[in-house]
Amino acid sequence: MAAPITAALLIIGDEILSGRTKDKNIGYIAEYLTGVGIDLCEVRIVPDVEDEIVAALNSLRQRYTYLFTTGGIGPTHDDITADAVARAFGVGIDHDPRAVAMLRERYQPHELNEARLRMARIPDGADLIENPISKAPGFKIGNVFVMAGVPAIMQSMLDTIAPTLQTGARMLAETIEAEGLAEGNYAAGLADIASAHPGVSIGSYPSFSTSGFRNQIVVRGRDPVAVARAVAAVQDLLHRLKSDGVPH
Amino acid sequence: MAAPITAALLIIGDEILSGRTKDKNIGYIAEYLTGVGIDLCEVRIVPDVEDEIVAALNSLRQRYTYLFTTGGIGPTHDDITADAVARAFGVGIDHDPRAVAMLRERYQPHELNEARLRMARIPDGADLIENPISKAPGFKIGNVFVMAGVPAIMQSMLDTIAPTLQTGARMLAETIEAEGLAEGNYAAGLADIASAHPGVSIGSYPSFSTSGFRNQIVVRGRDPVAVARAVAAVQDLLHRLKSDGVPH
Repeated sequence: MAAPITAALLIIGDEILSGRTKDKNIGYIAEYLTGVGIDLCEVRIVPDVEDEIVAALNSLRQRYTYLFTTGGIGPTHDDITADAVARAFGVGIDHDPRAVAMLRERYQPHELNEARLRMARIPDGADLIENPISKAPGFKIGNVFVMAGVPAIMQSMLDTIAPTLQTGARMLAETIEAEGLAEGNYAAGLADIASAHPGVSIGSYPSFSTSGFRNQIVVRGRDPVAVARAVAAVQDLLHRLKSDGVPH
Repeated sequence: MAAPITAALLIIGDEILSGRTKDKNIGYIAEYLTGVGIDLCEVRIVPDVEDEIVAALNSLRQRYTYLFTTGGIGPTHDDITADAVARAFGVGIDHDPRAVAMLRERYQPHELNEARLRMARIPDGADLIENPISKAPGFKIGNVFVMAGVPAIMQSMLDTIAPTLQTGARMLAETIEAEGLAEGNYAAGLADIASAHPGVSIGSYPSFSTSGFRNQIVVRGRDPVAVARAVAAVQDLLHRLKSDGVPH
């Protein structure tokens, strides 16, 4: 099987780190990439500090097939992502005529002030990513995709980007409810199954609510046969434990 | 003013990176730490891979006053956080009698199997963090706090930890609605205000819904007088722009 296609996600913004804004992009992007066969391997959230953004950009873009960023591409003084990306790549940055043309679709000439033109500052050599909602584009340079932080705009940019991405075999995931069984009861058997099925990864995920714990076992892998075999082994284990009347 | 108290958060878990589980801890912890006067400066999400966890632990614990982790302390084979922490600190790890005693409050002797005892494996020299919900403790070693991933348990552990933390002056945040004004119209004035008020940080946060864009300006700082001055300057700017009838 071909090498997996990997990705990292870099969320840029003080407002996420202060807790003022609750991030809605991580879960969406994670699910989206998984769905198209790209493994999201790491996420970082950094503040609106250029040195921090540059360091994270350079660390992540060198490690993974793709790096996606969200946030910091608006018109205000705290929007410094484009400059940080230019610095990370060691390239210049200036008003991009293609980006200016996009902004002209939204703004009258007298509205296109210096602040709004900031949104047309694009690192040299980058390709633009369209923004159908507010026109100010994202961009791609090297293996880095720079997107807006506003979820609706980010989602639309991701739809634009997706067909251009190299994708791998889709990761399949099967969820098995461990109804009435506690993790501690199936953990040993599950570890044995995990060892015996090296082509898949098996996780056990408890959640807790007023009605108590609910445990789900998830089998993930790219080979449908291997996943099916591991799922059958897990179901067999749970069935055996229930028949034995193992305490919860 | 004293040096700010800083923190990083490390979320451990394949299920977050695959998008299967939507993280609920980042926003909660971010808001919590901000509320007690600790600056959350960085967040990372890494998979259930020991090398990755160890690298992130060592990178983050050396940079910030505190490092908080969530996830990977259950009884199943994919719960490897405690071992990774022991390796990061270069210390041994074994069943901790205090942790075993806690588990005994929940489990009958015949229920306390090897898998469940895994939850009592604690790195040498660590202090335990109580878990009132399911008893399996978290722990603290050096400046690292290891907590459960299940939100209800994590939240309770954070309440236990909080009184022991060194905290700084609380970061104050004032939000000003930029009603009827677009970012591009107040960006230049806001940048001037930001330059003139070095003791505070000023952010502009657009959100988008079916009713269009809503812009909020947030002034943050530790000195109430400095924050109030900057807020007044922002309100004055917005008032002037509205009076001038600036296009949206």
